[in-house]
Parts: sequence; structure tokens; C-alpha cells
Amino acid sequence: MANRLITFTTDFGLSDHFVGVLKGVVAGIAAAARVIDISHDVAPYNLTEAAFIIAEAWPYFPKRTIHVIVVDPGVGSARRPILAEAGGHFFIAPDNGVLSMVFDAAPHKVRVISNPRFLRRDISRTFHGRDVFAPAAAHLAKGAQPAAFGKRIDDYIRIEMTRPSRAGKDAWGGAILKVDRFGNLITNFAAHEFAGINSRPFEMRAGTQRIHRLALTYAETEAGDLFVIVGSSGHLEIAANQASAAGLLGCSAGAPVELDLY
Amino acid sequence: MANRLITFTTDFGLSDHFVGVLKGVVAGIAAAARVIDISHDVAPYNLTEAAFIIAEAWPYFPKRTIHVIVVDPGVGSARRPILAEAGGHFFIAPDNGVLSMVFDAAPHKVRVISNPRFLRRDISRTFHGRDVFAPAAAHLAKGAQPAAFGKRIDDYIRIEMTRPSRAGKDAWGGAILKVDRFGNLITNFAAHEFAGINSRPFEMRAGTQRIHRLALTYAETEAGDLFVIVGSSGHLEIAANQASAAGLLGCSAGAPVELDLY
Amino acid sequence: MANRLITFTTDFGLSDHFVGVLKGVVAGIAAAARVIDISHDVAPYNLTEAAFIIAEAWPYFPKRTIHVIVVDPGVGSARRPILAEAGGHFFIAPDNGVLSMVFDAAPHKVRVISNPRFLRRDISRTFHGRDVFAPAAAHLAKGAQPAAFGKRIDDYIRIEMTRPSRAGKDAWGGAILKVDRFGNLITNFAAHEFAGINSRPFEMRAGTQRIHRLALTYAETEAGDLFVIVGSSGHLEIAANQASAAGLLGCSAGAPVELDLY
Repeated sequence: MANRLITFTTDFGLSDHFVGVLKGVVAGIAAAARVIDISHDVAPYNLTEAAFIIAEAWPYFPKRTIHVIVVDPGVGSARRPILAEAGGHFFIAPDNGVLSMVFDAAPHKVRVISNPRFLRRDISRTFHGRDVFAPAAAHLAKGAQPAAFGKRIDDYIRIEMTRPSRAGKDAWGGAILKVDRFGNLITNFAAHEFAGINSRPFEMRAGTQRIHRLALTYAETEAGDLFVIVGSSGHLEIAANQASAAGLLGCSAGAPVELDLY
Repeated sequence: MANRLITFTTDFGLSDHFVGVLKGVVAGIAAAARVIDISHDVAPYNLTEAAFIIAEAWPYFPKRTIHVIVVDPGVGSARRPILAEAGGHFFIAPDNGVLSMVFDAAPHKVRVISNPRFLRRDISRTFHGRDVFAPAAAHLAKGAQPAAFGKRIDDYIRIEMTRPSRAGKDAWGGAILKVDRFGNLITNFAAHEFAGINSRPFEMRAGTQRIHRLALTYAETEAGDLFVIVGSSGHLEIAANQASAAGLLGCSAGAPVELDLY
Repeated sequence: MANRLITFTTDFGLSDHFVGVLKGVVAGIAAAARVIDISHDVAPYNLTEAAFIIAEAWPYFPKRTIHVIVVDPGVGSARRPILAEAGGHFFIAPDNGVLSMVFDAAPHKVRVISNPRFLRRDISRTFHGRDVFAPAAAHLAKGAQPAAFGKRIDDYIRIEMTRPSRAGKDAWGGAILKVDRFGNLITNFAAHEFAGINSRPFEMRAGTQRIHRLALTYAETEAGDLFVIVGSSGHLEIAANQASAAGLLGCSAGAPVELDLY
């Protein structure tokens, strides 16, 4: 138990005291727990971005890691805090759909967190990261049994993650899921479902550009080139060599992407 | 001793090597100490912002935590480094008033840090985080006694934190202490001192807006609504549902806020 | 072994899942290793900035620390991953010159990392931080011997770091290496090589300004003053008291700097 890992994914940013407070609360309950930040820079209230980030990260952590996700536009309402088990990992989050991509990826069971023993005594109406989610994670890290947190539920919220839809025989319409730090546009086209682009001419349209080139590596392209590449997440990405594809296309998260295979 | 916690609050940012160097220095002296970042994004040289951030964070850490605050416009001058004990915690900072809100909150004693055994041998004129504050914290974490750092002083600097002043029978003038990540405007009105807004009509004026609504939770409001709420810090905050109140009001830290109770 | 330190210096930013994934991979291999971030905010693909940052930071860490640097415009190409030993520390990076300033500072030996036992089984073409560099560091932290990683090489890449060149008897032309968080302009003039400015009148020209003042400390200057100071890195820096020298001069990294001694 000594070394249990807790990860945090939030929209709290790193400028305020919020994230430090989460870690102080954990340290006060489970002194030996170790905390790893996944991201605190989810766009405020953006559930789909948070859902994508945790879905990309959790499989690379050891089993039994406790992942805490706090993107919580409904804080203070009746929305429930939940504890989910999936793929041998634990997830603590508001019941607002932010775990949908985890649930898509692995069999899971979900409990409501209702046992006040695992929460702070005084629960504010605006900062459940501090008062609910961090203490629950710390108690789990310290050895509390999942069943002690609350009863199993089946009516937890799942949001439909956007997937490409067919627009013709060999044509699909999809969307940009996320723009990463390098300006790469991560689409919702899973590479293994669109393997055709490996062998057939294609056109991908997004923003102001039409792209016909698939690159296997950045290194085979020249500075400024624009191309499609299979990203590390397994999705097709629109990328530019040492430049921002997002800038070149004038695109951001949510923008439509069209794919035609010829 | 093995696990002593050290927190850092600085204006060093996360882009340069500064924060990594602080942690390297700590690791070289006290290998088992654990470091938690509160914020490194205090606005450069902004003592009142740093004072607010550490005041919000420290009560959520376990007793005996060592909090290091380095916002230090007087680096290289005769201003002294200090070690304070307050509320069962330790604070290491320049003697420039940055601990004023900690001192307001808890009985405390203050020592000057003068024992060269706890500092780096060569002390630069510009980076006392590395040469003075981090090594002092690491030696304390490793077990050095507070009394060994230097003699007690009473003439340490306190800055008067702005508090609302009365402008009429039921009227006060205050200020914005801080704008948080979400654009919430944290005022210097302590909620328990202005409990009247829970039961009486009121007007709060800031920037371009007049606000008459008190919300208990974000969830009871609609997207875009502007309202006053008791924030997690215990201060009245001007907030907007899923929007930036700072943007809607055209306000930032330091701006005046007026409150009338009717 | 239990506590081996690993540092990370990358251009991955903190918004995406990338850095969390690096740490998850490390935790899965070497549960007891401790990770310290130096910076993840190197400008994308900027090798000289990364070279400077790691050069500034590593000497402040304990011996045997493992420093991982991932700024890797050639990811997916034939460029090799390397493991270097220098000054009693270990460095894991792509073979693209990013360790040049470490090599300038200390005797070193370099190995190619080729043993697949220390890499992830499936190596993507775009995320070697996750698939190559983090696992190699974790295995080293866990006790693998450097010689087990691969054979020694001598043809690793070094980039010539810009140094000032003589432009006249007492005149030199140099460059801005980096702008730090405070807007200080760190030049490539090593203070100990230009000690003449301590005793002789001088003029330093950069951007729109001519500077004739050397300050020993910030504290001896007034708010807004512009001056040269010996920075904590041992380089001459152009700085302004409580203001951004970069803003005042209209300068950024790479800009030329001229120095005349009179």
C-alpha cells in the first residue's frame, strides 16, 4: 500500500493554490501516496477534452493506480461523485460523463461515493476537488476497500464521444478532438478503422487545406510540410513538420474534418 | 523525519531551469524530503498575490510541513531571510511581508536565518531561492532544529493586507484580491463579516457591472449568469457560470469593489 | 537504488497527456524512482534552449541522477538514442546535439541505446519519450548497468554553441541565449571571461538600447532601471528592475549583442 499512485487531471490550472491544496489534502491522509499530474490545463469545464486526456494516459500507468479527474461544471449540484474500477485501475470523478472513454475501453463497475468517512467534514459548494475527490482518493490509497465507499450504480452518465459518420461510399465526416502543444490536430478517425489510407489515394479536408499525403514519420518530411500521420494515440493526426498545423489550417478543437478515399 | 514535506510558492515560472534547480538542491541535502508545488506562477514580484496564495494553501497541509515562499524583489539587498513557525507549520521566506497573511491567521515566532551551515557556500546576488531558501528548507527537513538557524526577531516586516473600509452606514469599499484561473474575482470581503448579504438585498459594483444576486452554488445558475458566491477561500467572489467574470466586468486584481446592503 | 532520481527536460508542454504518460511509464518499471521536472516548456524543437536549460540545472542535482532530455525534431528517423555519463551523472537523450553544453562542461562517455530489453515492445514513430527515453531511464534507475544499454560511440553529434567573437581590440559580438521568465536577457558572454567590465567603462548594445551600467544586485537599482548584471548562470545578463528587459529592448533569443570596453 505504501506507494500507491494517484494521478490528477483537472481544469484548475497551475497559477492558483488549487492544485497545491489537493496535494496537501492527500498528504494529510495518505502520507505515503505518490501523486503524478497528468494535466491541470484542461480547458475550463471541457468534459470531452478531459475524457480524451485521461483515456490517453491511464493505460501507461501501473495497475491499481488511482486516477482523479476533476472537471466539474456541476459542482454544488446533486451530481454524484463516483468511484469506478476499470482495467485494473481506479477512477474517481464527478458523474458527468468525463469517464466515458475509459468506459468505452474496458469493462467496469461504478459506485457512488457516499460514505462521509472518506470526505472532508465540511464540504464547500465550489471546491469538491479539495473536499470530496482528493480525500476519497487518499483514503483509497491508504487501503479503504472500494465497497466501503458506497453502493454500485448502473445509471451513471456516459456521453457519446463523437465518431466519424459515413457521408458516402468512401467518404466520412469527423472532427478534431484536440489540438496538442505542437499544433497537431488529433482527429476522431481511429487509424485501424481507416487503414485504407495506407494503400489508397485520399483527401483529408480541414479548415483551409486539402491534404493528400500520409507520412510514416516526421523525419521523412521537410520543415513546413503538411501531412497526415498516425499519432501516438492511434488516431489520424494532421501535422506539420516543425510548424503548427492548427495555425496553417486555422482550425481548433471541434472543427469538422472530411475524409475521402479514392 | 524521513518523509518531511516541503512546499514551494514562487514567481519563477515553469519555463526556466529555476524550479528544477530548487528541487535538485533539496534532493542533494535531504534525499527523503518530498516536494509539492503550490504555485510558481505568482506574478513577478507580486507580494500580495504570493501572500494570498500561501495563506489559502497552508492550512490544508499536514503539521510540520515546511513552506518555502520566494517572491523576492529585494534579492541581493540587506533584507533578511527568515524562518517562521506558525500553526504548527514552518515558513521560510524573505523578510519582505510575504508571510503577513500567515501571521494574521496564527500565533507565530520568527527567526532570522543566519547560520551559514544551512546555506550554500557561495551565495549569488540574484538567486537566493537556490542558495539560501531551498538549502535552509532541506536542512530543516533533515532534522536541524529551528533554534539553530538564527536568533529570534520581532522587527520582521508585515504588510497591511487591504480590507474593506466603511463608506456609509451600510456601504463599504473593498478590492479584488485575485483573479483565479476561471476568471472568478476574489474580493477582500470575508463572507462571515458580511453575512448580511444572505438575508438582505444588496448591490455589488465592480468594473462595468452591478450585481444583485447571491448564488449558493454554480449549479443553480445558468451559463453566462453573473453572481456573487461564497468562494472556497471564504471570501465573496464575483463569478459567472461557465464564463469569466473578469472578462465580463473588465476587471483585474487591485480593482475597486463597492458593496451596499439595503 | 531505491530512491534514484530522474529529471525530465522536454518541449512537451504541460497541457497534454504527454508528461503524465512519461511518468506512468517510469512508475510501471521503477516504482521507487523519483521524478523531478526541470522544464517541459522548451520552445518546440529548440535544441539550443534545451541544451542551455539542462546545462544550467544538472550541476545542482546529486551524483548519479538520471537526466532525460526529449527535444527531438528527428523522432522516427535513424537518429540514435544515447546514454551519456558525465560528471558522475547520467543523461538520456536523442543524439542530436542537445547534450553539447554538458559535453563542454565535463569529461564524458557516450553509448548508443540499442538493447531492446530496456525499451517498450512497440515503438511508435512519433513518441519516443514514452517508448524509448522514459523506459531506458527507468531501467537504469532500477539498476541496469550502463554497459548493458549498448556499445560506446565516439561519433555522437555536438553542436557548436555560439560564443562571442572578437570584433575589434576591445569589442565583441555575441548573442542572447535565452529570455527568462522575468524578461532578463541571458547573453553568451561568460562573466569570468569578460571581467573587464567590472573595472572599465563599457557599452553593451542590444535591440534599441545602449547600456553602460553594471549592477551587483537588483536591490541597488531603482524600478525601471536597465543594467548589466552577472546572472545566476555565470553569464552577463541584461536586466531591468521589476520590469522586462526583453520588452524594453524589443529583443528575444538569438538577437545579437555587442560589447565594447573602453
